[in-house]
Amino acid sequence: MADKITPRSEDFSQWYQDLVLQARLADYSPVKGCMVIRPNGYSIWEQIQKDLNRRIQETGARNAYFPLFIPESFLKKEAEHVEGFAPQCAVVTYAGAKDLEEKLIVRPTSETIINSMFAKWIQSYRDLPMMINQWANVVRWEMRTRLFLRTTEFLWQEGHTCHATHEEAEDESRKMLRVYADFAEEVLAMPVLPGQKSESEKFAGALRTYSIEAMMQDKKALQAGTSHNLSTHFAKAFDTGFLDKDGKQKSVHQTSWGVSTRLIGGMIMTHSDDRGLVLPPRLAATHIVIVPILGNAATRAKMVEAAEELKVKIQLAAQASSLPYTVGVLIDRDETKQAGWKFHEYELTGIPIRIELGPRDLEKGQVVVVRRDTLMKEFISVESAPDLVIRGLAAMQKELLERARAFRDANTFRVEDYSDFKPRIESGGFFVGPWCQSKVCEEKVKEETKATLRCLPLNENHEPTREMNSCFICGAGAGQVQAVFARSY
Amino acid sequence: MADKITPRSEDFSQWYQDLVLQARLADYSPVKGCMVIRPNGYSIWEQIQKDLNRRIQETGARNAYFPLFIPESFLKKEAEHVEGFAPQCAVVTYAGAKDLEEKLIVRPTSETIINSMFAKWIQSYRDLPMMINQWANVVRWEMRTRLFLRTTEFLWQEGHTCHATHEEAEDESRKMLRVYADFAEEVLAMPVLPGQKSESEKFAGALRTYSIEAMMQDKKALQAGTSHNLSTHFAKAFDTGFLDKDGKQKSVHQTSWGVSTRLIGGMIMTHSDDRGLVLPPRLAATHIVIVPILGNAATRAKMVEAAEELKVKIQLAAQASSLPYTVGVLIDRDETKQAGWKFHEYELTGIPIRIELGPRDLEKGQVVVVRRDTLMKEFISVESAPDLVIRGLAAMQKELLERARAFRDANTFRVEDYSDFKPRIESGGFFVGPWCQSKVCEEKVKEETKATLRCLPLNENHEPTREMNSCFICGAGAGQVQAVFARSY
Repeated sequence: MADKITPRSEDFSQWYQDLVLQARLADYSPVKGCMVIRPNGYSIWEQIQKDLNRRIQETGARNAYFPLFIPESFLKKEAEHVEGFAPQCAVVTYAGAKDLEEKLIVRPTSETIINSMFAKWIQSYRDLPMMINQWANVVRWEMRTRLFLRTTEFLWQEGHTCHATHEEAEDESRKMLRVYADFAEEVLAMPVLPGQKSESEKFAGALRTYSIEAMMQDKKALQAGTSHNLSTHFAKAFDTGFLDKDGKQKSVHQTSWGVSTRLIGGMIMTHSDDRGLVLPPRLAATHIVIVPILGNAATRAKMVEAAEELKVKIQLAAQASSLPYTVGVLIDRDETKQAGWKFHEYELTGIPIRIELGPRDLEKGQVVVVRRDTLMKEFISVESAPDLVIRGLAAMQKELLERARAFRDANTFRVEDYSDFKPRIESGGFFVGPWCQSKVCEEKVKEETKATLRCLPLNENHEPTREMNSCFICGAGAGQVQAVFARSY
Repeated sequence: MADKITPRSEDFSQWYQDLVLQARLADYSPVKGCMVIRPNGYSIWEQIQKDLNRRIQETGARNAYFPLFIPESFLKKEAEHVEGFAPQCAVVTYAGAKDLEEKLIVRPTSETIINSMFAKWIQSYRDLPMMINQWANVVRWEMRTRLFLRTTEFLWQEGHTCHATHEEAEDESRKMLRVYADFAEEVLAMPVLPGQKSESEKFAGALRTYSIEAMMQDKKALQAGTSHNLSTHFAKAFDTGFLDKDGKQKSVHQTSWGVSTRLIGGMIMTHSDDRGLVLPPRLAATHIVIVPILGNAATRAKMVEAAEELKVKIQLAAQASSLPYTVGVLIDRDETKQAGWKFHEYELTGIPIRIELGPRDLEKGQVVVVRRDTLMKEFISVESAPDLVIRGLAAMQKELLERARAFRDANTFRVEDYSDFKPRIESGGFFVGPWCQSKVCEEKVKEETKATLRCLPLNENHEPTREMNSCFICGAGAGQVQAVFARSY
């Protein structure tokens, strides 16, 4: 089966697709642009949900659920919003055996429908902030799709908050960007660059959009999450107002923020290799697989018993450790499959640590431990195995992030000069340089190099970084902002 | 606010609606027939998901996700299926700024789309059983809707399994019915009657449908979950076959089973009262609220400190107990609200146990404990409070079920004679009697009394019960099955 995955170095895009299909993470469906998330892939989404949901609740947001359908007139209330989303909408025109009086849009995002409820629920400053999160499916009609990365239907969470002032909304949108950045690095082991989007790349209807940008192993950028300061744009369209302490009626200031099943694609393209999925332990349901080499009838019972003993000791070591998750240990007792087939299968599907336990190993009091990311075989004593594999999980989580960060940093380049930039963009990477903030320069780069402006990285004050150089594209004078350009997904 | 809830005895239907809106469990949306599930209601759904998901996984099913859209041609492949669902379908005819070549149905259920994938994934008996579960939204166009109980869009889980033989599929469909029944009784504290549906009430496309039926406080029946033996009906339509051990190509035997957000409505109508929601502790996120009566500036710090000490002790007692959930304890420190307002609020929203802690109580070393279901005030010593409230949670869970079961049993009647049945159905209840299995008798009851055949209750062998009496409707001779009739939601 291994030869069914095209080598990553040969064709990155084919490698990715082969891996997703072979590891049974997702599959193409008969509905154009829609994917099926198979159990191996859905399990990763469940781990993402569990961890991220906790972080979201800790900010004070509460989960709720809003309708799938949005009346067409709602979408039209915010002019930029409808302009941005109308071309991607799926529209229900017929239902209950009748043509509908008003068409219903299958939600591409829920700012409009949620505002219609906020307007009903919020009366005074005492009702603020109001912070809602929703885990849901959304639909955006796509021409070119790619499993997890860009599909017509996808799963996501979307947060929607209302605040009394511009400052509070701005703080909230930046805070959620940090929540996403921390989550991406701590859980997905995927380093990200937090930044602000340019005017032309911001969300349709937002005042300002922030994003986290990750670098894939082919050196392309992936937008991995966004957080928007919506100002009063939707509140004015939907009359979402409140009576403030000063007795005046005002519009609420809003934010929205979301990440999606795209994160699974980003995580795969950050860590995986030609053997299959490399999964950060914090995203695994099964962390350790013990493969006893069962041998003949005489050794069989002894081998299974030894594996079970080891499993119990690993679970005890896990409980005594500070790992922030329950360690899943699987013993593979299947006698219809060869050990080699099993090793391959667990490498393909990304079990973080494999323990091989053969009759001769057992005699010597040792086991073989293989970490999925390094693929190094270690012979260690049975007694030291439990602690060692638990430490191995923590080390793997940490090293995956370090390795990805080192790769990203090694492929991030300073540019001062457009003639220098143009040929170098071919070999990929992030290119950081001063930009005059004109749309003309941004467009020129896009047309001539296919690279887009990914973001304006934020400094420690969470503001775009000013620098004293002239725009690297047009040469306009000093005092520009720093911008990152890259080819992207 | 209390007077905003119509008394249950006055108008049950209005009481239910008032309660759902006042307790902020759900709200009407601007989209006809679709509801908004507000945080207080969504939290109950999350508890349902967590517990039921564990039970489903323990049966061997794995979670996955399939597309929201179903090509129209798929729905038409199974004749009974399309006939049953076509009138309720919402149809996407336009997407990505173009008319679609083939219309897409927003899933009313996913047997067809999932079969198209099963057909691809299953080759041989080695791939069986294949057991998949999906948590998703579905859409069935409804004329008359009611929050949680019947809405155009609702949330549910749908299990879909494939087996090598009829017997295995039949076992699976019955096993899942038992999982639902246990879940309903243990977690929702809602007694249910497991049974088989009549031919006219079975799922469109199934060989056989099983259901659990609950009795609401107005003595009407609520179908709370269904499990179907689909036989090879969909497998034949989608060519979902496998090579069996005997070398022959065969169709798989399938089941599907589901419960939905309707369970929340059923749970409310089983336990709640004129003050608001009565929530079984296993469905609560916050189980105990401590309301310190803060008094003046001098007592304030002391009261908060005492409340915090009590909270810690309750959490320790919870950890030492065998409660199968983490006990959530909230201290209400809000100084802008009166204690009376708070008591009312927590009764309305169904916090299982309230502890009142006043300065004079503290001097006497006592607290006031009020259980939400009984509303009895108990003065108990601070030292004994932690153990007592933890035992109170367990007792409340148990007694809610017992009370509901006693109510159901007291309102379940034996019928032998149609002339006796007809007047009595007006006052509600379950009516159990022998039925000749003819559709004519079933229809007659429906037309003349508005009661429907809820199910044929299963005996200990999970078969409909035979009895030696003649049909209570037409008087046909002995050897009939036992059937339950009731008016229903």
